[in-house]
Amino acid sequence: MASLPSKVTLCDVGPRDGLQNEKQTVATEHKVALIHRLQAAGLRRLEATSFVSPKWVPQMADNAAVMSTIERRPDVAYAVLVPNAKGWEAAQATRPDEIVVFTAASEAFAQKNINCSIAESIERFAPVVAAAKAAGVKVRAALSCAVGCPYEGDIHPDQVDAVAAQLAAIGVDHLGVSDTIGVGTPRRIQAALERALKHFPLAEVSGHYHDTYGQALANVYASLELGVATFDASVGGLGGCPYAKGATGNVATEDVVFMLNGLGIETGVDLDGLVDAAAAISEVLGHPPVSRVARALLAKRAG
Amino acid sequence: MASLPSKVTLCDVGPRDGLQNEKQTVATEHKVALIHRLQAAGLRRLEATSFVSPKWVPQMADNAAVMSTIERRPDVAYAVLVPNAKGWEAAQATRPDEIVVFTAASEAFAQKNINCSIAESIERFAPVVAAAKAAGVKVRAALSCAVGCPYEGDIHPDQVDAVAAQLAAIGVDHLGVSDTIGVGTPRRIQAALERALKHFPLAEVSGHYHDTYGQALANVYASLELGVATFDASVGGLGGCPYAKGATGNVATEDVVFMLNGLGIETGVDLDGLVDAAAAISEVLGHPPVSRVARALLAKRAG
Repeated sequence: MASLPSKVTLCDVGPRDGLQNEKQTVATEHKVALIHRLQAAGLRRLEATSFVSPKWVPQMADNAAVMSTIERRPDVAYAVLVPNAKGWEAAQATRPDEIVVFTAASEAFAQKNINCSIAESIERFAPVVAAAKAAGVKVRAALSCAVGCPYEGDIHPDQVDAVAAQLAAIGVDHLGVSDTIGVGTPRRIQAALERALKHFPLAEVSGHYHDTYGQALANVYASLELGVATFDASVGGLGGCPYAKGATGNVATEDVVFMLNGLGIETGVDLDGLVDAAAAISEVLGHPPVSRVARALLAKRAG
Repeated sequence: MASLPSKVTLCDVGPRDGLQNEKQTVATEHKVALIHRLQAAGLRRLEATSFVSPKWVPQMADNAAVMSTIERRPDVAYAVLVPNAKGWEAAQATRPDEIVVFTAASEAFAQKNINCSIAESIERFAPVVAAAKAAGVKVRAALSCAVGCPYEGDIHPDQVDAVAAQLAAIGVDHLGVSDTIGVGTPRRIQAALERALKHFPLAEVSGHYHDTYGQALANVYASLELGVATFDASVGGLGGCPYAKGATGNVATEDVVFMLNGLGIETGVDLDGLVDAAAAISEVLGHPPVSRVARALLAKRAG
């Protein structure tokens, strides 16, 4: 058996990737409360909001308000999503610790999701990356559809290799290998990660897995076997899947923490505090968490 | 990376372990239809019913009717649960291919679940095992709480070792390592399996994992890494968890098949046919399948 990392860093993407995919508008105060609960539970990396135009993502129109209202802890890195130079300008004013730029391993997905080719997206991001780095802000890139695409089907690891190389070339610090539609299984995820690791060091490659088909934890485990020790996850499994309505989206942070606890891997996250955060935001949204751990632990609390 | 088995055998326990934990009574015709759909979908091992007294398990009171009504295929092994000599007598009349006897790795669970010590359960089963084998019927044992117990907490692998040895000694053919409350994580599951493998050959050890905390597929993957290639699963994730109401029980067969398909491992099971079976029994029960794969694929079918 491969030895597993002794520590894992989790980035909770619930406040951004999670809430963005919820239909109803969530008030700024609830977003702020969620971020406070997550940092109180021990999360030290948070995807706080998005600076994509409110025309496209109305849920994140209060991005500056969220960033200025949250009580920022010096030991927490706050990341925001940035689509282009204009988004970077708006984001920069809120002093994020990290920005997240995004493209895809699938040409069809890039066209449909960001209205340009992969090459154009890299070109568009190059000055943003340079500006962010000059400002001392870390740049992560999210590589969508790293194993499968709703339009193209299976994505060959060579595609990950090619796009990862381009992202490294423009100075991106960190690559998030994203299974956007949750079709990945352990060996295919490992193949995608191995290609990413050709261009980024182990500490700068993360897994972002959706649980649409229930595969996410198996994929996290398979990633740990490669030494990958950074993952995105969404408290309560917030988010849903835009490609299959009613299906699950981001893997739930609680489910990941439960597995890592069982594996003896340190996360610094308190599972009960995390379940409290999931319960609170679920009450705001009016539906129970999709996280299996949150459901089981809340059922046990209820007796 | 360890090489994985090229083929896996799945036993669908939905008709027994699944339906037994559903509150409402399910008519015999629906149980029969479920079994027919499962064998049409390619399942070649089915846990068909239980011969535990209807006083304890009223849902399975139609055990003999189920066994006599189903159209049995010669290439399918039909297993039934047998609690004692009386159960064996009733079961034997229905000509099962396999019987399942059951005990626990946890003394407290044995006391609460089967009202005797582990040692007494072995003593009670010894003549049943002998009789079944004399009748040419294969005997599987389900070892409950192999990694965790609702009363005792963590179960040490030494407990699995000790009870597996006793079950092998009375002539049991096959050991099912059961994570009854779903608290297992990959390395703890591997530790339990390794102890089971001291007493049973690789082909005669199976994993029976509950998905209460979302860990089941990661545990299946970790089991494959040890070469274990036989698993129980329940169509649609039928069953629920008696120890945390509202939580998930048996891992869904669809979710396991999806992962095995992605890993290139042959199961002989048709995923679409399985989703049809899950949809049909869910309609009878009046609640949607908890299986992530069934939900996602049914959502896609609905558009």
